[in-house]
Order: sequence, then C-alpha cells, then structure tokens
Amino acid sequence: MPAGRIATVPPVSEAAATGKVAAVYADIKKTKKLESVPNFWRVLATNPDHLELVWTRLKAIMHPEAAGRSAKLDPLTREIIAVAVSATNGCAYCVNSHTAALRKLGMDVETLGEVMAVVGLFNSTNALADAYQVEPDVLPPVD
Amino acid sequence: MPAGRIATVPPVSEAAATGKVAAVYADIKKTKKLESVPNFWRVLATNPDHLELVWTRLKAIMHPEAAGRSAKLDPLTREIIAVAVSATNGCAYCVNSHTAALRKLGMDVETLGEVMAVVGLFNSTNALADAYQVEPDVLPPVD
Amino acid sequence: MPAGRIATVPPVSEAAATGKVAAVYADIKKTKKLESVPNFWRVLATNPDHLELVWTRLKAIMHPEAAGRSAKLDPLTREIIAVAVSATNGCAYCVNSHTAALRKLGMDVETLGEVMAVVGLFNSTNALADAYQVEPDVLPPVD
Amino acid sequence: MPAGRIATVPPVSEAAATGKVAAVYADIKKTKKLESVPNFWRVLATNPDHLELVWTRLKAIMHPEAAGRSAKLDPLTREIIAVAVSATNGCAYCVNSHTAALRKLGMDVETLGEVMAVVGLFNSTNALADAYQVEPDVLPPVD
Amino acid sequence: MPAGRIATVPPVSEAAATGKVAAVYADIKKTKKLESVPNFWRVLATNPDHLELVWTRLKAIMHPEAAGRSAKLDPLTREIIAVAVSATNGCAYCVNSHTAALRKLGMDVETLGEVMAVVGLFNSTNALADAYQVEPDVLPPVD
Amino acid sequence: MPAGRIATVPPVSEAAATGKVAAVYADIKKTKKLESVPNFWRVLATNPDHLELVWTRLKAIMHPEAAGRSAKLDPLTREIIAVAVSATNGCAYCVNSHTAALRKLGMDVETLGEVMAVVGLFNSTNALADAYQVEPDVLPPVD
Repeated sequence: MPAGRIATVPPVSEAAATGKVAAVYADIKKTKKLESVPNFWRVLATNPDHLELVWTRLKAIMHPEAAGRSAKLDPLTREIIAVAVSATNGCAYCVNSHTAALRKLGMDVETLGEVMAVVGLFNSTNALADAYQVEPDVLPPVD
Repeated sequence: MPAGRIATVPPVSEAAATGKVAAVYADIKKTKKLESVPNFWRVLATNPDHLELVWTRLKAIMHPEAAGRSAKLDPLTREIIAVAVSATNGCAYCVNSHTAALRKLGMDVETLGEVMAVVGLFNSTNALADAYQVEPDVLPPVD
Repeated sequence: MPAGRIATVPPVSEAAATGKVAAVYADIKKTKKLESVPNFWRVLATNPDHLELVWTRLKAIMHPEAAGRSAKLDPLTREIIAVAVSATNGCAYCVNSHTAALRKLGMDVETLGEVMAVVGLFNSTNALADAYQVEPDVLPPVD
Repeated sequence: MPAGRIATVPPVSEAAATGKVAAVYADIKKTKKLESVPNFWRVLATNPDHLELVWTRLKAIMHPEAAGRSAKLDPLTREIIAVAVSATNGCAYCVNSHTAALRKLGMDVETLGEVMAVVGLFNSTNALADAYQVEPDVLPPVD
Repeated sequence: MPAGRIATVPPVSEAAATGKVAAVYADIKKTKKLESVPNFWRVLATNPDHLELVWTRLKAIMHPEAAGRSAKLDPLTREIIAVAVSATNGCAYCVNSHTAALRKLGMDVETLGEVMAVVGLFNSTNALADAYQVEPDVLPPVD
Repeated sequence: MPAGRIATVPPVSEAAATGKVAAVYADIKKTKKLESVPNFWRVLATNPDHLELVWTRLKAIMHPEAAGRSAKLDPLTREIIAVAVSATNGCAYCVNSHTAALRKLGMDVETLGEVMAVVGLFNSTNALADAYQVEPDVLPPVD
C-alpha cells in the first residue's frame, strides 16, 4: 500500500459523516466503547447501505446483548473464533484487530500461544486430510 | 472419489499395523477413547514417521494432560477453534470430525449455530478488509 | 459425507418449521420464486436467529428490490460475482447453486466458460503476485 | 517487505529489457495504453518464457479484441470478476491493480461497495455451506 | 454432486468433438500418452477457446519438450509442486489426478508421505506467521 | 503493521531467552547455520512449549539428518514445496524466507520462474476444476 493511503478508497472521516453513516458511527463507538471509528468502518462507509448491513450483522453476532439478543457463547470465545478465522485467512487488518481485542479481554500472550497452536495444528491436518482425500469416518446418523 | 476408496493411498488397517504404527494406533485409541482408528490416521500410516510426528503434535496440543503438559484452554474451546479453522478451509473430513467432537462434548445444534455465525461473519469481514486493503488502526505498542 | 446425510446437523424440514423459521422459509420461497426451501437454509434453521440474519442480509444484497432498496448492479452481475467467489473458495454447494442461477438467468455454457476463464486467470496471477511479493505500483492518492 | 524492494527477485527495468522481454513490454504498454510497465510484469520478466506465457493468456482473456478474439463478457464485467477473485484471495497487489482498473472504467465508490457487498456475502455463505457440509440440492440433469 | 453428473456443465464427449476441440483432444492424448481424455478437459471444451488456452499453457509448462521448450525442472519436481498446490487448495479432482501422476512416475507411498509432511508443515507455519503478522527478517538487497 | 512492530506480540530477544527458549534458539542457529534467530521463532517463543513443538517438527521434516532420521526427498525439493505452499497461501513472511532459502541453495531466478510457473498454473486449474465441480476420473483401485 503506497504511503499515506489506508485503503483503496477514500475513507469517510467522522467529521464528514452525515445521516445513516453518522448514526452507525455513533452506534459503533457506543457499543464497542471506542473513542474513534476504526479504519474498517470508515472505508465501508463509502457505501452507506453496506456499512449499515455489515454493522447490523456484526452487532447482532458479536454484541448480542446490545442488539437485544441472548447468546450462549461468551465474548472471549467469540473473539477466539474471530482470530482463528482471521489467521487462517491471513487477513492482516483482522489479525491485528482481533488480537488487540483478545488482549483487551485479558488474554496473556502464553494463552494466545495456545490458541495459535490449535490454529496452526488444524491448518496442517486440514491440508493433510485434503492432500490424501480422506473420506469421513462412518458417523452415527444425526437426529 | 471413486466408490470403495477412502483416500488416494491404501490405508493401513489395524490388523496390518506393526511396530511404530501399531504403537501409535494403540495410543490414539487409548488417548481418544475410541474403539477403532479413524481413517485420517490409517492413511498417514503409509509413512510411519509422519504418522508419529502428526500424532505426537496433536496429542501435545489437543490432549495436553495425556502428554504430561498443562493447558489454559479447555477441550471445548480447542474443538471450537478446530471447527472454525476447518470450516474456513472447507475441509470435509475435518468439519465432520470436529463437529462430531463438539456434539460429543455436549454442544447442541443451536450453540453450534452461534459458532458458525461467528465463523461466517469473519470470513465475510476478512474478505472485505482485504478487498479494500484496509490498513491496521494505530495500536498501542506491545509490551 | 456418509450416504443419507445432507449436512453435519439435521436440517429443519418445511413441515417442522414454526415461528421465525416458518416465516423466513415463506419469504425465501416467495422472494426467490422457489417451490421448496434449498438445503442451505434448512440447515441454518437449526439456529433460527442465525437463519434470519443470513437471509436478511442475502435478501438485501441479492434481492434489493424485494428488500425495498435500489441497486446499481444487475442480477446477472451479482450472480457472476457469486460464482467467481464460490469457485475461488472451492465451495461445492455454492458452485452448484450459483451456476444453476446463472443458467436460469439465461447464460449459455460458452459465456460461462468466459467467466471461468477470468476466474482461472486471476487465481493464477494472484498466486504469482503473492509468490513474488510484488509491491503495488505507485498510485495517485485517492480523494 | 524490506524498504526499497518491490519483490523477492530483482525486476527487469524497461531500459534493461531486450528480445522477448522488450517485445512483451511493448505489447503490454500498447494493449493496456500504459506509459510504463507495471511491477508485476517486470518481476515475471526474470523468466522471459513465463512472462510471455502469462501475458499471452491475460491478453487473450482480458483484451480479446487485441488478441483477435471475440468475447461475450464486457471489460467492466471482467474487471469485476478480477477484483472479486483478488479480494477473496486477499492478494494486495491484485486488489490495488484491479480496483484502479474499475475506477478507470468509471465505477464510483458506491457501486464498488455493491461489488464488495456481494463478495463479502458469498465469502460468508461459502464458509457456512462448507461449515455444515451442505449437500447440493437435487438439480435437473445438465444437457 | 448428484449421481450421474460429472460437473456443472455437460462435458463434450470425444465422439462429439469437432474442429478446435477435436484437435486439442488429440494433442492431449498424444502428449500425455492417454487413451481417453480426462474429465477436466472434456468440461473445459464447453468453451473451445478456453480449452485451447488452458491446454496450450499447461503443455508449455508441464510438457516443455513437446512444446519445443527447454526446462530446468524435471517432470517429477513439477508434479510434486502440482500436488503441493492442489493439496493446499483442497482441490479434490486435482489431488487425485496429480497423486496418480506421481505414482505413475514411480513415487512410492512412503516418499509421497514425505511430500505431504512438508505440505502439512508449511500450511501450519504459514498460518502461524500470518496469525502473528510476523514481519520478514531483514534481507540483503536482491541484485 | 504499524511502524516499529514486527508482530502482534512482543518477540523474545536472544538476550532475554532462558531455559527451554534458549535451548531451542541455540539448536535453531546450530541446525540452520544462522547467526541470529529469525523473527518467526522469536515470536513463537512467547509460548515456550509451542516454540519447542513447532521447532521439533520442522527440524524432523526439514533437517532430518540433524534429527537422526533419513529422508528420500532432498533439501532443494523440500524448499520448493515450501515456497509452493507459501505462495499458494499468500504468506508474505514465508515467501520471503523460503525464496531466500532457495537462492541460498543455488537456484537462479530463471529456475525460480519455472517453479512459479507451475505454482501459477495449478492455482488456475485448481480453481477451474472446483469451478466446474469436475469429478475425478475413474482410477484403478489403490493396493
């Protein structure tokens, strides 16, 4: 990425946000207890409808209580899944963001290392199972 | 996969296992409390050294107490990471195997749906962050 | 996948659907002009909230007029993107489903071949650009 | 990438290009109406035969008229597929390059947002279909 | 894939092949010393220009002597790369095809296990390097 | 990645390494004939058990003689597989590291170009085989 650019499109600053964008920005900061809007959302705001769609969904899944939903998974487990998916996809922005979230939730680097060990292990065994085209073991019927 | 084949190489049956392969097979069944050796391991056994390497590592990470190690993550969290990685990679054998493990640990399909919701969400936002080449937000220095 | 299973969890049949699930099923059939609910949705229904979230989002993006939104992309272009993403990810269910959608929209196999040629080309050049770690060309600043 | 490097191998400058490389460089600039040769091609030129192979194929698929072929897809649709594939693969060079191409063809950022919305959506549903190992719906025979 | 289908489009049988398709089919069988045309090519033939493009490129890279080119890599090394890429991408058709090619070239299953060990190892370390966003070590300038 | 960071966690310097970490660091430098410990290992050291697990495995597979094992693949072939996997996954750190290793083993950029040509080719055909959901050709039974 050439210096001075944060994305392939010009992000919408908080000062320039109006209407739907301003409302989503405010909800992001309130829900996530942030003082500024992260780059990701400022870039999505180049299409306000898409910004709203992504935020509504992320809020429902990652902040269920704020969205008026109940959830069985706890926030730490959800962030662990987020970092596992992001590491598997090799998404730089996402790995940084979700690692920061895990640290903020109190996870130390040694425990993070355990998460990564599991991530590394299954990226390996996934490749091996595909490499040999191993068929699933006979499983009991779902019911 | 043509009918009657379970992989691209002929798996080593339990009856045919000797030496290092037989020892690993026995340890897999004991550690995982299984009555037969899953296809994955029977295929890896076509190279006994590799079988041993993969099993030793998986045992250390997924069955730390059996390997004489302590761990901060619990077994359910480890299996959740396994299924998140496997779903992201689209590995059929692995998704089947780790979903079965989650069910065996007592997870109901509604909670599994929450896991999958998080997996689906971040596969989407990962693609979007990459799609726009969003740069990481300024983060506090690690320490 | 063992014979007789369509997924790792038991799908919710249309006959068994009630409440939120029944409402989403009805909307899927009406919006997509289908006589039965595809497997994908019947599996998601094992977590009704997740079913609703995914459907709401897909409807907004792929059927904007039904969701009361306007869109600049036409339905054929959207399905072309869907098949390009699905082929790149190697998702069997998705490739089948979106190829069927393209055919239903009138695309012949020769034109589909052109779509696939572009998909194949860029999966190759993407790997090459990553393989050599090519830096982006200097671009004018976005504004 | 350490500063001052644009790739893992030394690119071939236009000044240093001779023979097959010079001929391909000239054709790239003419066909794509560019004033300089992008980094990608200068890196491939470290193996002139490979440079020629990749260019010949890209020209045939992305610039069919220049290659003396006819095509049913229009240039905008081809670039939309290119960016969808590149975003799905998370290829930085490619996302930058094809987003620039879409902008040059006149696409505004709001429409780009619609493209990305579809890309994001199907990266999510692909993961979900794989996550649950959903089998294809019964389809009519092709013919 | 519903029974009785080999792809999402109807493949072109050898009996039905004419013109460009027939010529490519003949060259595939001659170059690869096969008695029938594999499914992959019969599916690509639904767009004859694309069939020709893919075959011309594969022939140049994988059968350089038949294409009148010289090469430094030997056929076994090329097939090893093919299976490594295919396993990493989890492509079922490709893993089957390239494993068969390796076996035909004389590789025994134990050596194949070594190939797979390396493939599995680096799918793991790739994920870990991405998981921690490790920056490249300072490298000497290329020259 | 914000300037001045080499990863999402603080790497363990050689000066700060003690116990298990110091022992692994020493073995890495001895086995790989390096004067300093690469970033990758210094980051993994934030969880000493994981560092040891990854190194033990990599040593066994990539430096079999040092691990007291024999191997049929030669070091160059193993590094070729490493770069093929890393390029396919788009892992920046890994592509840099394994390209450097190939160059150190004496591979010139033209031969590297042949490796990349094969990598690029099969990333394309993998996508095409998945894009059309091509079924494996009928293969003789394994034995």
